[in-house]
Amino acid sequence: MSIRFDPDGGRPREVRVPAGATLFDAASWNGIAVDSTCGGHGTCKKCRMRVVEGDVPVSRLDPRAFSPDELRAGWRLACRARAGQDLRVEVPPLVTRPKAATVGVGRQVILRPAVQKRCVTLPEPTLSDQRTDVERLRDALPDLELRVDLPAIRGLARALRSGDDTGDHPVTAVVVDDVLVDVEPGDTTGRLFGIAFDLGTTTVVATLLDLATGTPVAVASLLNPQQPYGADVITRISATMMDPDALGRLTALAHDGLDQLVGEVCADGGVDRREVYEIALAGNATMVHLALGLSPEPLGVAPFVMASRSFDDLVAADLGVVVHPRARAYVFPALGAYVGGDIVAGALASGMDRDRRIRLFVDIGTNCEILLAAGDRLLATAAPAGPAFEGAAIRCGMRAAPGAVEGVKISDEDVLLQVIGDVAPVGLAGSGLVDAVAAMVAAGLVDASGRLIAPDAPSVPPGLAARLRQVGQERVFVLAFLDDEPTDDPTRWLYLSQRDIRELQFAKAAIATGWMLLLEEQGLTAADVAQVLLAGSFGSYLSPTSAVRIGLVPDVALLRIVSAGNVAGEGAKMALLSLRERAAAQALLEEVHYVELSDRADFNDRFVERLTFP
Amino acid sequence: MSIRFDPDGGRPREVRVPAGATLFDAASWNGIAVDSTCGGHGTCKKCRMRVVEGDVPVSRLDPRAFSPDELRAGWRLACRARAGQDLRVEVPPLVTRPKAATVGVGRQVILRPAVQKRCVTLPEPTLSDQRTDVERLRDALPDLELRVDLPAIRGLARALRSGDDTGDHPVTAVVVDDVLVDVEPGDTTGRLFGIAFDLGTTTVVATLLDLATGTPVAVASLLNPQQPYGADVITRISATMMDPDALGRLTALAHDGLDQLVGEVCADGGVDRREVYEIALAGNATMVHLALGLSPEPLGVAPFVMASRSFDDLVAADLGVVVHPRARAYVFPALGAYVGGDIVAGALASGMDRDRRIRLFVDIGTNCEILLAAGDRLLATAAPAGPAFEGAAIRCGMRAAPGAVEGVKISDEDVLLQVIGDVAPVGLAGSGLVDAVAAMVAAGLVDASGRLIAPDAPSVPPGLAARLRQVGQERVFVLAFLDDEPTDDPTRWLYLSQRDIRELQFAKAAIATGWMLLLEEQGLTAADVAQVLLAGSFGSYLSPTSAVRIGLVPDVALLRIVSAGNVAGEGAKMALLSLRERAAAQALLEEVHYVELSDRADFNDRFVERLTFP
Repeated sequence: MSIRFDPDGGRPREVRVPAGATLFDAASWNGIAVDSTCGGHGTCKKCRMRVVEGDVPVSRLDPRAFSPDELRAGWRLACRARAGQDLRVEVPPLVTRPKAATVGVGRQVILRPAVQKRCVTLPEPTLSDQRTDVERLRDALPDLELRVDLPAIRGLARALRSGDDTGDHPVTAVVVDDVLVDVEPGDTTGRLFGIAFDLGTTTVVATLLDLATGTPVAVASLLNPQQPYGADVITRISATMMDPDALGRLTALAHDGLDQLVGEVCADGGVDRREVYEIALAGNATMVHLALGLSPEPLGVAPFVMASRSFDDLVAADLGVVVHPRARAYVFPALGAYVGGDIVAGALASGMDRDRRIRLFVDIGTNCEILLAAGDRLLATAAPAGPAFEGAAIRCGMRAAPGAVEGVKISDEDVLLQVIGDVAPVGLAGSGLVDAVAAMVAAGLVDASGRLIAPDAPSVPPGLAARLRQVGQERVFVLAFLDDEPTDDPTRWLYLSQRDIRELQFAKAAIATGWMLLLEEQGLTAADVAQVLLAGSFGSYLSPTSAVRIGLVPDVALLRIVSAGNVAGEGAKMALLSLRERAAAQALLEEVHYVELSDRADFNDRFVERLTFP
Repeated sequence: MSIRFDPDGGRPREVRVPAGATLFDAASWNGIAVDSTCGGHGTCKKCRMRVVEGDVPVSRLDPRAFSPDELRAGWRLACRARAGQDLRVEVPPLVTRPKAATVGVGRQVILRPAVQKRCVTLPEPTLSDQRTDVERLRDALPDLELRVDLPAIRGLARALRSGDDTGDHPVTAVVVDDVLVDVEPGDTTGRLFGIAFDLGTTTVVATLLDLATGTPVAVASLLNPQQPYGADVITRISATMMDPDALGRLTALAHDGLDQLVGEVCADGGVDRREVYEIALAGNATMVHLALGLSPEPLGVAPFVMASRSFDDLVAADLGVVVHPRARAYVFPALGAYVGGDIVAGALASGMDRDRRIRLFVDIGTNCEILLAAGDRLLATAAPAGPAFEGAAIRCGMRAAPGAVEGVKISDEDVLLQVIGDVAPVGLAGSGLVDAVAAMVAAGLVDASGRLIAPDAPSVPPGLAARLRQVGQERVFVLAFLDDEPTDDPTRWLYLSQRDIRELQFAKAAIATGWMLLLEEQGLTAADVAQVLLAGSFGSYLSPTSAVRIGLVPDVALLRIVSAGNVAGEGAKMALLSLRERAAAQALLEEVHYVELSDRADFNDRFVERLTFP
């Protein structure tokens, strides 16, 4: 159907939508501002529009929002008006000035949390007004169509009779979407909180948000308490396959970790746990399955099948956190077993759904998730990069922690190391590994095939020859002598071995094959890429120059390579602050086409091509 | 809006409905048969209709049910098609031959339970088919739009991987409305049960129903275990006001009683508790509040306010019964604090919503509920009859149990008693009380004002004079000498005292005032009443002749006075068997106008008029 929107004072916009789409969605999808505080749930009655050409039938809710004259004049609630023919629609100016918060990659999020609080004073019943407690509340909130269940009825009865028997009894209704979750005595509208979780395999972060203002109140993080069961998802999945009790324990550990963070942020922010009415969580598919007590076994073996992409109707208790007993939980849906909700959250925070340039989103880790946005198309895949970037499988490798080398520069004379915490170097972090190899390629110490050259090769700068050594039968390059002076004792060297370079080659080739295949799928080449977003903490430290030099990312202008930071956590915050952002995440899920690499006949050919250095 | 339905092979019908009503509702309200197995929930896609004049926009579901050509030809799903203008609609012939069961007062109920089971065999996932468990199930049930929550996902994952690893895995989806509540391994479609409860103040009855066939499988009953807290609702409410622990104990007693009956009917019917997927319950407002753990205190004091009329989204566990852990509970909504869900259920089973003649529905008890149906109007009230009909406050009164006199005939010579169990008389049941007084009025032993005449009055038949005695200062009439021969020992008499007759007068006057005021409210008189339905077990024993004679019911032809039996329990069964009947109960609730007697200035005048015998 074709709809022409005439916004008051704005320029007309003609859009095409499928039959049956609501005017609210049609406007929202196309960036036309619509008044609404309920996010299109039919409760706020603010999304008024006037159909001036074509016809939209009167919905059940319309007579509550409009007079018969207005209905005849074409006024309809946009969220209930479905397009069944071509229409022309007038959009009135915004009445409510929406509050907004800035989160994600400079994303302005208009506050529209699922939770709202409304304070009302109910009249005392009399013999001529025998309305039930629930009816009196409903009548006091005529703009909401509340679903009221048993615990809410209990809370309402208690709140109404909690004060003394004289005078008015103000009570505050707590509403999530259209469900009345509680009724609190007095006016508590100023206290409305939510917690956003980034449940990473390594680190768990919680942010307490004031949902009335969008302000972060407190942040806390801890190492994922599941670490004893393995550093990565595969070892944790294996644990559940070998030990029937492991699933229960891993679930309990996840719950403990999340709940500990709840305690910390609530204490820090001066917020009672019962004032937290919703939580949002982004995590990869394995972390989410474990946290929800679902066996991750099918994720660990081909054909890599999830129990579900999305989880509806969750409560906070399903994730083991003690907040308001009726608090709901929003968990980001996943695209695939290896492109999880954390990536969807990251894509949301990075605006992959809105910025329609050709963009690559790369989250580097043991499993590397890659998204390609190209116009209206979104492609996703996962590349098995292995643990090289996390310091594992690298002889002198270590996590990004104090003492880890995160940057390496090599001149003809010397090697300059940048060390986390400005202390003596202890090991090599992932970003240091990439820098080191890139610098060695540039210095001619490593050839295009990845082979460390011999110390006596003519191209070796004289100042560096002494660093080309052997450990056992293997050629190595010494990045630093730990005692500040060259020794012959390899245990006092910080070095990169031929095998380490091979590990890096395998890892970067897997990733590069991933984005190459996505680009090919769209008929694009690396030169077409307008922006590369590097997500996750590793992405923040990686040198764009080095990443390009080793072929980890496409060879584009350096300014086009952007570190996006912890976008999964930002996405979780956005979901908590706005139902529209959740709808956008859901839309992402439906738009993205997932490309399974392990199924492709051309994967190995492409992989081998990508092993070399450009 | 005006809608003209053209049923295939039937006569056209022109109906008027409010704007926004669905074609499904419009047809159902007007008795036009529509194919549907989901009861209008948009899941079965069977309610196909063709709009041939006027326009109805394409709904979100229509493209799943119809081809583009069909959509252009006007085909729509009736349950999603809202009338926004005058329409002409073709209704195709019924495809599915609906199953039906006979319940209630000869009511034919078309089986459409909220619960359905569907057996599907899901294909094994492969690398080219990585659909999640949930997606595979959804795709196998394309006619349902399932809501799938965490426990269902857990059940699905388990059921899919429960068998050996070779061959197909048939699983059975259990769906309540549109919610997937469980997935069972194998084909369990033949096992589908529900339990209907009649939670009376005195007696609790449970009926186990096979929801696939509508057959009752087992019935059990017990005395309400709350009896120690009082025989009637007022004493139980008082108990909660005096003792803060009483509410919790009364709730626990209700739960224990209901769950004990579940155990009995399941054992009796050879049904596992987990095969019971839904329960329905009818009870008065106090019983329902107590069973749900809600304080009944506001019901016991003016202005008699309920916490809520209706209770949505209840699960069986809320009523303390252990059946399938996700089983839902339907509790009949109440009209008022003293016209509860039991009366709504009874009205449903009696067809008060459909039979449009002028009918009175009278449920006699300590609290007497009265409904008047007159054309499109439904009026309700409650009359405080007191406990006379239950044998309390009557000197020789007793419950209807073996030994209780349930019928009395008085000739000039003798008194003939009908005794429950054909044993020697022990006391007087409510129906015996009514019979006795009616017979005494007819025999001239009691005058119109209710006074027992003197033994030496000229009108006393000689054969009965010896029965007019004194107990203390009070005149009495001896119905039976318990030792079979006249003695002077009052403890060996079964008698009716002057005070007993006064109790009965008060009780019947309260009831008669109730129906009189309802008739007056509608501008009707007793002569207009086409039928009097006597509900409840007391109604089954009451002699219509005697009830008319004392003025308890309107003076209509005896054939028009019908004992309706335990209609509350029948209503609960109907609700369990059919979503449409639930919708009808809800509609009743919205149609009925409640008349509060204690608020009326003319109540006392009318009451005094009604004290005398006609």
